[in-house]
Amino acid sequence: MSIKIGILGYGNLGRGVECAIKQNPDMELAAVFTRRNPDDVKILTEGVKVYPVDEMEKMKDSIDVLILCGGSATDLPVQTPKYASMFNVVDSFDTHAKIPEHFAQVDEAAKQSGKVGIISVGWDPGMFSLNRLYANVILREGNDYTFWGKGVSQGHSDAVRRIEGVKDARQYTIPVPAALEAVRAGKNPELSTREKHTRECFVVAEEGADKARIEEEIKTMPNYFSDYDTTVHFITEEEMKANHSGLPHGGCVIRSGKTGWNQEHNHVIEYSLNLDSNPEFTASVIVAYARAAYRMNKEGMSGCKTVFDVAPAYLSEKSGEELRAHLL
Amino acid sequence: MSIKIGILGYGNLGRGVECAIKQNPDMELAAVFTRRNPDDVKILTEGVKVYPVDEMEKMKDSIDVLILCGGSATDLPVQTPKYASMFNVVDSFDTHAKIPEHFAQVDEAAKQSGKVGIISVGWDPGMFSLNRLYANVILREGNDYTFWGKGVSQGHSDAVRRIEGVKDARQYTIPVPAALEAVRAGKNPELSTREKHTRECFVVAEEGADKARIEEEIKTMPNYFSDYDTTVHFITEEEMKANHSGLPHGGCVIRSGKTGWNQEHNHVIEYSLNLDSNPEFTASVIVAYARAAYRMNKEGMSGCKTVFDVAPAYLSEKSGEELRAHLL
Repeated sequence: MSIKIGILGYGNLGRGVECAIKQNPDMELAAVFTRRNPDDVKILTEGVKVYPVDEMEKMKDSIDVLILCGGSATDLPVQTPKYASMFNVVDSFDTHAKIPEHFAQVDEAAKQSGKVGIISVGWDPGMFSLNRLYANVILREGNDYTFWGKGVSQGHSDAVRRIEGVKDARQYTIPVPAALEAVRAGKNPELSTREKHTRECFVVAEEGADKARIEEEIKTMPNYFSDYDTTVHFITEEEMKANHSGLPHGGCVIRSGKTGWNQEHNHVIEYSLNLDSNPEFTASVIVAYARAAYRMNKEGMSGCKTVFDVAPAYLSEKSGEELRAHLL
Repeated sequence: MSIKIGILGYGNLGRGVECAIKQNPDMELAAVFTRRNPDDVKILTEGVKVYPVDEMEKMKDSIDVLILCGGSATDLPVQTPKYASMFNVVDSFDTHAKIPEHFAQVDEAAKQSGKVGIISVGWDPGMFSLNRLYANVILREGNDYTFWGKGVSQGHSDAVRRIEGVKDARQYTIPVPAALEAVRAGKNPELSTREKHTRECFVVAEEGADKARIEEEIKTMPNYFSDYDTTVHFITEEEMKANHSGLPHGGCVIRSGKTGWNQEHNHVIEYSLNLDSNPEFTASVIVAYARAAYRMNKEGMSGCKTVFDVAPAYLSEKSGEELRAHLL
């Protein structure tokens, strides 16, 4: 009996979840739900239907875990608590500052329904968070560093697209090699925002647009660019399509710390990701946690969880014996 | 109320545990147990006593977790089940092939006593195992690679020391840079033993010993060296002491895999360690899992566990709220 997964929201992430389910033989895609007209949503899996979102409640008993693929700004704060009252759910809520509030709401709903809701799953928050936790409990005296990139930041790309005269834009976040090197060498540098990352923008300008003004507006944009060294390249639509249509990303979490009676020994722990497709990797993490949600709920657990609360063995379909024999 | 830790066995690992306890304010060292004459064992922590091992049972109620710092060959197979019948225990059992048997024996003892025993804690097995598991559940289609070093292998150093005419020896395991590079680039190479690691030996020969014969014996030693490219350097005792007295180690676990409907996207996950002191780092991992053993037992759990069975939040003394607010 495979685990029946529902997907709510069929954008890049939803499609990534669909692909990940295909790689997990103990799971099957049961349904995709959309707020669009279902006839307009073409999915990849043969024989699976697309339903309007308001038919979800009727399918309460034929879906084991619902994966919420909406955005953190407005979708998930409403959807995750709402659907945790009917389903085991997993989301990728990534507004760090609002996690406590989101957790409380999902926890209340999931405890009432007796379901499990796992929030903030992906790579950051998610795998990066886990690695921060593991590294911090091991190296008690030390410093944490997180670098992102090289990769496409969707938020920054959108910010550039909102500038007048910009037809399309792609923004790459890039770690500064010297900073990364100093951290990896255990030098524990204090790094300003500007010293950690640079930003590189590829912009398609509208015909006749003032490129100097666009470049100036990007470089001085508060929060997004003004604290960074930013490079702007104007390119053609064809170049954009040919060279910048992917969504690569990645980065690393490094903790450097000391042990010994007089802190005489230095250690560096690094977790790094190099991803061709940010949404597909995020989706692959989410699908593993969907298995955990299902299994934890089967064992009688309920309420809101994060990656910190999930014993790693729940993520695998293999038995404890198999895991100990082959992966330990 | 701090967690009271007992240490059995005061070698490099035991001393590392003592140092790690000092860095964890919610813990205290309650006692050190030894098979030697306690008067001959000088520990670092003021006011803490060293007891003969046969007095351990009397201290059942004043120790929350006993950390077993003996060897995997003969000590732990006996000690861990024996003491799991009285204490929550943590060990670093690292004979991969015998883990299933060890698990079963500790599980039986710990279930009977109602205690928790966490086995095979450290970095490999331990943190490397965890990262193999996490990476495997995320990237279902892919390849695993583990590289060790650059670092001192105690087993290989001992093997060289057993050769006639060798006064002292230190063996370093070193990953082959080209292999590491190909793996990190996502090329999924098939690598022979020789292509993955080289071995470098520093040897102090006894006066008048036949160095050519020693070098030949090292390079052709089955299992230990014959499958590797090995370099041998003869040095003086002074050089050995000055340049090779530490126990650095490290390595990395890499998984490279594909996602996408047609497996069109490649991803690389890497976890790497660069350690000045192998025993102190191992001890720091063990101490974090001692906290988990204590807390899981407080919640009513019992039996044998591995790192796969421990939800990460148990490793930290911080509350769920604090972890979500600061590390997620």
